[in-house]
Amino acid sequence: MKKPLILVTNDDSIYAKGILALVEAMKEIGEVVVVAPSLPQSGMGHAVTLKNPITIEERNIFGPDVKAYTCSGTPVDSVKIARDVVLHRKPDICVSGINHGSNSSVNILYSGTMSAAVEAAIEDIPSIGFSLDDQHRDADFTLSKIVAKKIVTQMLEHPMPKNNLLNVNIPKCSEAECRGYRMVRQAHAKWTEEFEERVSPRGQQYFWMTGKFVNLDAGNDTDEVALSENYVSIVPIEFDLTHYENLKFIQEKWEL
Amino acid sequence: MKKPLILVTNDDSIYAKGILALVEAMKEIGEVVVVAPSLPQSGMGHAVTLKNPITIEERNIFGPDVKAYTCSGTPVDSVKIARDVVLHRKPDICVSGINHGSNSSVNILYSGTMSAAVEAAIEDIPSIGFSLDDQHRDADFTLSKIVAKKIVTQMLEHPMPKNNLLNVNIPKCSEAECRGYRMVRQAHAKWTEEFEERVSPRGQQYFWMTGKFVNLDAGNDTDEVALSENYVSIVPIEFDLTHYENLKFIQEKWEL
Repeated sequence: MKKPLILVTNDDSIYAKGILALVEAMKEIGEVVVVAPSLPQSGMGHAVTLKNPITIEERNIFGPDVKAYTCSGTPVDSVKIARDVVLHRKPDICVSGINHGSNSSVNILYSGTMSAAVEAAIEDIPSIGFSLDDQHRDADFTLSKIVAKKIVTQMLEHPMPKNNLLNVNIPKCSEAECRGYRMVRQAHAKWTEEFEERVSPRGQQYFWMTGKFVNLDAGNDTDEVALSENYVSIVPIEFDLTHYENLKFIQEKWEL
Repeated sequence: MKKPLILVTNDDSIYAKGILALVEAMKEIGEVVVVAPSLPQSGMGHAVTLKNPITIEERNIFGPDVKAYTCSGTPVDSVKIARDVVLHRKPDICVSGINHGSNSSVNILYSGTMSAAVEAAIEDIPSIGFSLDDQHRDADFTLSKIVAKKIVTQMLEHPMPKNNLLNVNIPKCSEAECRGYRMVRQAHAKWTEEFEERVSPRGQQYFWMTGKFVNLDAGNDTDEVALSENYVSIVPIEFDLTHYENLKFIQEKWEL
């Protein structure tokens, strides 16, 4: 079998430890090309750069056998420009991460890591976002590398019929402590108490976004529960956002 | 019945014509509070501001009976800070827009307008994003105002059991030309040929994101088709992104 072409991106920037771990894991599986933001882009969600031009620059960061480019834009920009300008063809798979910090539950919406993966999936490219439940810049990605290799191999061997897109979160523990894999759904959760007020030396009031993550979900079959019990959580992701049940509801009840 | 408290936001900035139209329509229904970006934020998706502080400033833009605040951050920031800092309680409904340009199909993911509405829905606030299929800054919002008033009234009268969240797109036509309302699903579509290459006076290569929107969906029951036939399209939106069919698939087929 021909070696698969693997596009690697992230949102913590091309210089983050997590993307290096992902590149190392992917080099054992296929030909790796990296296009990733030149600056950290956490919390950028599915943002795209419309009002400024975008630049890319080749960088020899990951050794001679890995083509790597920085992108001046967002994670989603990186995937778009990788496909159209760098690769000129679809990669066999796109992997994003490994994010410093989990992207379980509703955090998928804020996450640049996951939005990059979603963007690839819109392009019909099999795609996985990986996140480690440890925000530290020197986090230990040993377990994450094993997980990434295993899951990418499974996706290449058993592709889903369509919408090949996964949100994978890895617990902060050693390989020995990790209890395995759980295929689960996105937990219903949210952030509360989100702003901390301060006053500048010039007397202007300003706010820092902060907050506490609250799991509102009573179910045991969620990514939040899996992760808290030292399992790797795997959630297949949909980007048709239609709520079909509510569609039926308004078709029956509404008068317009 | 007590007048509902209506939070209005958008992504084209508080100074756009579209948000003025929405405020005018909502004033006929309830008490209106506006918190919207001070600068245009198109294409910001679900981005949040984590690395900089956020400021808000009161502005008398919409007359004495409408409290209005600019927010230095993104549309999603605006909704978060509206709830936590400005209102200190849940509004009865949040409306976002009226966007200059449609947000049908997959454009919901890139849209700051729709991400603001999604953010409100995560907070369990009934929420609607409105977009007019006309990007012009002087677009005619006459039909849009009628539509917004009608749909908000329906949502307040017949709330969906949960996940009260709609993506509403309005065709670029007069009230007489508009053929009515269609409750439909999100079309499967994407952007192609996305970058235009240029060279700066100093010889640096750069790219503008551009592209052509391509509807890949053969169905007639989509927002794209409705809009193209001069109907208002209404798509109920889900923010649990779990792909349940694929979840079953990997639970059966994958070996981990």
